[in-house]
Amino acid sequence: MYAESLNKLIEELKKLPGIGPKSAQRLAFFILGSSRKNIEDLVASIIAAKDRLKYCSVCFNITDVDPCKTCSDLSRDEKTICVVAEPKDLVAIERSGVYNGKYHVLGGVISPLDGVEPDSLRIKELLARLSKNSVTEVVLAVSPTTEGEATSIYLTRLLKPLGVKLTRIAYGLPIGADMDYADPATLSKALEGRREVS
Amino acid sequence: MYAESLNKLIEELKKLPGIGPKSAQRLAFFILGSSRKNIEDLVASIIAAKDRLKYCSVCFNITDVDPCKTCSDLSRDEKTICVVAEPKDLVAIERSGVYNGKYHVLGGVISPLDGVEPDSLRIKELLARLSKNSVTEVVLAVSPTTEGEATSIYLTRLLKPLGVKLTRIAYGLPIGADMDYADPATLSKALEGRREVS
Repeated sequence: MYAESLNKLIEELKKLPGIGPKSAQRLAFFILGSSRKNIEDLVASIIAAKDRLKYCSVCFNITDVDPCKTCSDLSRDEKTICVVAEPKDLVAIERSGVYNGKYHVLGGVISPLDGVEPDSLRIKELLARLSKNSVTEVVLAVSPTTEGEATSIYLTRLLKPLGVKLTRIAYGLPIGADMDYADPATLSKALEGRREVS
Repeated sequence: MYAESLNKLIEELKKLPGIGPKSAQRLAFFILGSSRKNIEDLVASIIAAKDRLKYCSVCFNITDVDPCKTCSDLSRDEKTICVVAEPKDLVAIERSGVYNGKYHVLGGVISPLDGVEPDSLRIKELLARLSKNSVTEVVLAVSPTTEGEATSIYLTRLLKPLGVKLTRIAYGLPIGADMDYADPATLSKALEGRREVS
């Protein structure tokens, strides 16, 4: 219905996640209305990200230098490795500012329905890091979803026999939450994990 | 927190309308995970749209050929001009398949708060078309919002004295709507516009 190049642009935008026909149309008109300079910046950032970014050969975080900043940071405790599913989880933990160890990014969670088997994750690379370095603690920080839990259980069975100290981040009520609105699964985890008040 | 080129990409994506920090992050990871080919297609479609598309010199629709397909279509009735605010409104009317006249795209609606005065719209170009050609009917098809209504009233005052037949698309209950849920303004328009059952 639109001019050919506009239709093509809308079709391409519709392939992006979370972008339906209406959003694609809105984005296309925004692009048409933007200055040439702004569009060149957008396109350049897409190309630069695609060209420069790669996985860190140590922790498999996304990085433009290898090894990544976290891995080459000597002030961080290299005896502790925090295992996360995705780079965005690493960033979420970094934002909290309380963790000063190293990371290992699995690249997903075990989900047979989506074709993600343990072999497709960076698990053997984690085992290699554990045997090579003097790691004393592995912190599992995978989201408490069904697939995340399956991944945590799988890793626990694999790592426990190695004699390394294995911990898991706490599950419970999020700060600021209303207890009234908490779901039963969260409340049961919160009760299970109760601690003596000191 | 992310690698530099990833941060830059997220920042650029956040400038798009309706894209917040979370969506920008999601889009960025989607782009990183896509094949080089898909990303080249996306970027090429952005550049092509930006380079090729222009306004039709007759009706001001967005087009890659001038005059646009609708304006150069000889099978369409050139004695009727439908006035719409934006190219997407033209497409919405075309989709209904019942209109076979020409169009005129205003490029917005009168909205002094957003700095859109009548002078910034293609109103004098509409007047020029009316005086040049033998137009017998002008159909106002502007959205019935506050700004749209203001635009319709402005155009009515301007065009009525010219002696051209001036019509306005009907306002009323949308097809499939539940009368119970209709707002009072729509119902009042629907009652005002009632027609004898034939």
